[in-house]
Amino acid sequence: MTRVDYPRSVNFGPPRSFRDVLNSKLKETFFPDDPFRQIKNEPLGRRSIKTIQYFVPICEWLPKYSLAFFKYDLLAGITIASLAIPQGISYANLAKLPPVIGLYSSFVPPLVYALFGSSKHLAVGTVAACSLLIAETIGEKASPTDNQELYVSLIFTATLISGLLQTLLGVLRLGILVDFLAHSTITGFMGGTALLIILQQMKGMLGLKHFTHSTGVIAVLRAIFQNRHEWNWKCALVGIIFLIFLQFTRFVKKKKPKLFWVSAMGPMVVVVIGCLFAYFAHAEKHGIAIVGHLKKGINELSVDRLNFDPKYVSAPLKAGFITALIALAEGIAIGRSFALATNDQIDGNKEMIAFGLMNILGSMTSCYLTTGPFSKTAVNFNAGCKTPMTNIVQSMCMLLVLLFLAPLFSYTPQVALSAIIISAMLGLVKYKKAYHLFKTDKFDFVICMSAFFGVSFISMDMGLMISVGLALIRALLYTARPATCKLGNIADSNLYRDVEQYPGATGVPGFLILQLGSPIYFSSGTYIKERILRWVRDELDSAKPEEHDIEYLLLELGGVTAIDTTGVEALFEVTRNLESKGIKMILVNPRIDVMDKLIVTKFIDKIGKDAVFLSTEDAIDACRFSLQRSKQVNEEGRLNGS
Amino acid sequence: MTRVDYPRSVNFGPPRSFRDVLNSKLKETFFPDDPFRQIKNEPLGRRSIKTIQYFVPICEWLPKYSLAFFKYDLLAGITIASLAIPQGISYANLAKLPPVIGLYSSFVPPLVYALFGSSKHLAVGTVAACSLLIAETIGEKASPTDNQELYVSLIFTATLISGLLQTLLGVLRLGILVDFLAHSTITGFMGGTALLIILQQMKGMLGLKHFTHSTGVIAVLRAIFQNRHEWNWKCALVGIIFLIFLQFTRFVKKKKPKLFWVSAMGPMVVVVIGCLFAYFAHAEKHGIAIVGHLKKGINELSVDRLNFDPKYVSAPLKAGFITALIALAEGIAIGRSFALATNDQIDGNKEMIAFGLMNILGSMTSCYLTTGPFSKTAVNFNAGCKTPMTNIVQSMCMLLVLLFLAPLFSYTPQVALSAIIISAMLGLVKYKKAYHLFKTDKFDFVICMSAFFGVSFISMDMGLMISVGLALIRALLYTARPATCKLGNIADSNLYRDVEQYPGATGVPGFLILQLGSPIYFSSGTYIKERILRWVRDELDSAKPEEHDIEYLLLELGGVTAIDTTGVEALFEVTRNLESKGIKMILVNPRIDVMDKLIVTKFIDKIGKDAVFLSTEDAIDACRFSLQRSKQVNEEGRLNGS
Repeated sequence: MTRVDYPRSVNFGPPRSFRDVLNSKLKETFFPDDPFRQIKNEPLGRRSIKTIQYFVPICEWLPKYSLAFFKYDLLAGITIASLAIPQGISYANLAKLPPVIGLYSSFVPPLVYALFGSSKHLAVGTVAACSLLIAETIGEKASPTDNQELYVSLIFTATLISGLLQTLLGVLRLGILVDFLAHSTITGFMGGTALLIILQQMKGMLGLKHFTHSTGVIAVLRAIFQNRHEWNWKCALVGIIFLIFLQFTRFVKKKKPKLFWVSAMGPMVVVVIGCLFAYFAHAEKHGIAIVGHLKKGINELSVDRLNFDPKYVSAPLKAGFITALIALAEGIAIGRSFALATNDQIDGNKEMIAFGLMNILGSMTSCYLTTGPFSKTAVNFNAGCKTPMTNIVQSMCMLLVLLFLAPLFSYTPQVALSAIIISAMLGLVKYKKAYHLFKTDKFDFVICMSAFFGVSFISMDMGLMISVGLALIRALLYTARPATCKLGNIADSNLYRDVEQYPGATGVPGFLILQLGSPIYFSSGTYIKERILRWVRDELDSAKPEEHDIEYLLLELGGVTAIDTTGVEALFEVTRNLESKGIKMILVNPRIDVMDKLIVTKFIDKIGKDAVFLSTEDAIDACRFSLQRSKQVNEEGRLNGS
Repeated sequence: MTRVDYPRSVNFGPPRSFRDVLNSKLKETFFPDDPFRQIKNEPLGRRSIKTIQYFVPICEWLPKYSLAFFKYDLLAGITIASLAIPQGISYANLAKLPPVIGLYSSFVPPLVYALFGSSKHLAVGTVAACSLLIAETIGEKASPTDNQELYVSLIFTATLISGLLQTLLGVLRLGILVDFLAHSTITGFMGGTALLIILQQMKGMLGLKHFTHSTGVIAVLRAIFQNRHEWNWKCALVGIIFLIFLQFTRFVKKKKPKLFWVSAMGPMVVVVIGCLFAYFAHAEKHGIAIVGHLKKGINELSVDRLNFDPKYVSAPLKAGFITALIALAEGIAIGRSFALATNDQIDGNKEMIAFGLMNILGSMTSCYLTTGPFSKTAVNFNAGCKTPMTNIVQSMCMLLVLLFLAPLFSYTPQVALSAIIISAMLGLVKYKKAYHLFKTDKFDFVICMSAFFGVSFISMDMGLMISVGLALIRALLYTARPATCKLGNIADSNLYRDVEQYPGATGVPGFLILQLGSPIYFSSGTYIKERILRWVRDELDSAKPEEHDIEYLLLELGGVTAIDTTGVEALFEVTRNLESKGIKMILVNPRIDVMDKLIVTKFIDKIGKDAVFLSTEDAIDACRFSLQRSKQVNEEGRLNGS
């Protein structure tokens, strides 16, 4: 084929070196946010300062800190502390831990986060889902009531394992793992967990004395209805009043976002009123249980309570592993989304290290797993926080509470805690979001529902794993069946588009133009090969006798970003098959990675450099030109011969 | 923004119905080869005939069968039968089974395949890798020497499980599973297995009496050298002579492909000479072991020997599961590649059913796992086979052997079998292919080497799983980090291409043009969002003060074939962030699936239909026009105002 000279030609430059490609891939995989951007191109002195500032962000913002900021941070810090007290006690209750551990967990971890964390808005605290998951997993090995000592120490161990894993993932820059928790998985998981937690709270709301240790929906429902004789209407009445009050405060916030503090203060108000009510009305005599003794004083060291006994260690390992990932997913997603709102950048992997350190130190000072819960962070953001100083303020408030006020909270009625938890959980059942998924993406809906029902009816970890598994299958199916389509010419233009999408687009006689999907990998090589040959067969079958046969197969590769050796072999096989049919293969616009690979595997040598074009238009022009020339040559030959 | 009227416009038609999309996706996933193409559009009578012909292909080719075909098939059938005898005995030996079972396995399964199989070229037989894998896995539960009865029955059970699984996968059209065995995995796995098998044969070659039951390289090497005193030089000498002979026949075939029958007959010649030698030279007296008693008569029924005792069933389950997939991968790949050479079509899923039925019936008639081995199939192809009739001929030859000649083979020296196996295995260590992988794709090389070293030093199943796992991670990484690039204008053209690939391409002032990679999924949403914002940041940072700011961000979506809800959310977040910077987002050429999803999620409503264009050129023209207009309006306003 003679090639017409085009001003625009394909770049057949030598493939980039392996080192360059590896560097660029590693960077995109592990440093997609280019964290050291500010540090490059700086003199050594400034560079070391910047490096320290990078790893310990407090060194960056504290020197610039001003009183103007502190006014905002103080207000926000007090607000989140007032939320931390009831939430801390409630979630510790959910994790079947002594309530004071919930308070401890809002003292040390926020301090650590303030040192290493880079999000301005994140408010550190415990979260409901992880609390329940820990209780479920550790509860299998040790009873929280019969052997509390062991149970608590295993929970500290799980927290340490979470922290170590989070730090490790951050250091290895494996933030990419968190990317595999799809939003739909998280929606379903949170919804299912909220349902479980709400059902668990029926014990507190109805004042039950006997209950199940299981978390499954069916077991809990059975426990509720089998113990009907224990239902306490006074308890339920108090609970419902609290719940209505809390839901009302949320309603106020929803209507007037400026009044966010109404809902932020709600739980604290419920606890205070609950305490007063329990103290003056002698609630316990009416069968309304209270939290009970809360020890004065700050966190005890718990290094000596970490328990790695091989008999039990499987439970903390499992709990630590799963909660580490969930806590990271929640914390990082929330930090990032608030950062986006204010045009800040959050380095996910650095955040992981901050979370990890906070849990490692937490596990040694009688705290259990903490992260950046959505509710608290939103309150912090609305309260106008400016820097991580809010976490220090929160911490100081907790210090005061622990030193002086803790015993007062021992009168908190269980039913008040249940109402607080239920109210928080109702916000997490995102049925609208599930409906949106159903409307927009059925597969995402299935992923979401599998998490929801898996969590509700099997167990939290199984539900999560099934859902993640389905999402991974979706991703793998994508790589196994990349979408290919046939292109046609859009009338009066030089554009070639999918004929299914643009039914007006018409084929070019003598040409079959296919756009291949990406990637051409081991998983898709066979498929792409067979799919191409099927298009060719269909085209040959449908061609009317008077029409031209296919002379050229154009493969538009503009969308293909990766190819592996199996993929190249598939292309080789296609060319061999086409040769036997007398069809020539033409490549259009191979991307840089694909081009490199086609050159090193000598595929370009096989089809010839004159069979690769920069655009479909160029390819068709050149092929037509050479078709006409060969016809002319034939005719001239015939004329000369005659 | 006012939109200039272009003759070519984006198709905003209503999204296709869920049913249509599901149908098309299911078809591409499970019926990519459109198996019922011929059956559609036919009257009912013909359709039912065609359906039967589809499922039982012998009904299609037998009525058209002619004597002319039979001449070829007879010759090919006899050739593969003469290969089947030595291979059958050798591989049964490798599987630590009585040698006659190897012969049985070339009698029943080829008959079944002839009924249901659709490949003309495939020759059915046992394979080395699976034989060793079965021996390794079943050997963990039952000793092939101390408890042969149990061992053999567990192997039949494993064969039944393989057959059931293969049939099930075929019926459910899960041929896609086989696609996930990358060529590089298979290369490494086969190489590693060949190494193990060659080392195993040292027992036969050196005439050792004591050996290890383990298959690992280190254990076997230790066994060989610890038993140095048992080395028998006579045995080794005979073995080496046989091996040199076999390698010579292979060399002949390589130099003159027409003489393929020299290498095909080689093993049979070795066996015959070996038998004669053993018989007349009283080989056993010289310490050269022979195969020993081979029972006359055809396959016994083995239905009653299938053993599902829960104490042992885990081993046949594991062996059955893994070998089913390996056998399918080998058989289907081989059938397909020979079909490609002759322009035939092979339906992978139908082949699976044929393989499955052949193993189910095989397990009931004292056969163990069979598939379409490469060596035998190549011989069959070269011998000029025309239809699956060759398998029937092979089967009939084996029938005659079993009825009349079997006892003669009892004199076959073990060392002859070892030489046959080693010679076959030497061809499977594809070091050139591994070097090619190293040169062309480092990741594929790692996948290959992990299988090779995993198989050699850990175990066959672990090696396979590690390698498959790495390949899956590669595929998942692909979906997590789709390649994005910045586009620039190629001089004197309307084309926009990657500025890294075409360094001459220049940016368009006021525009940032990015081409997104596919897919925009849960795993890549966050990455794509951050990557886009990083491009924007870099562009804003690098802009000189006198240059224009970015007014428009163009996202070229032509290569994006899929987006899920998490991906759409990421795009929403990017627009929100861009809005705060005063940059407008423009989409170029969204594909049909993406467009559907952007419409149902109301993303198109968010950015406006006038922000979606069919090509980059159109988008830039329209945006420039509206920029100029707004400038004019501003100037006019200023003039009017002044």
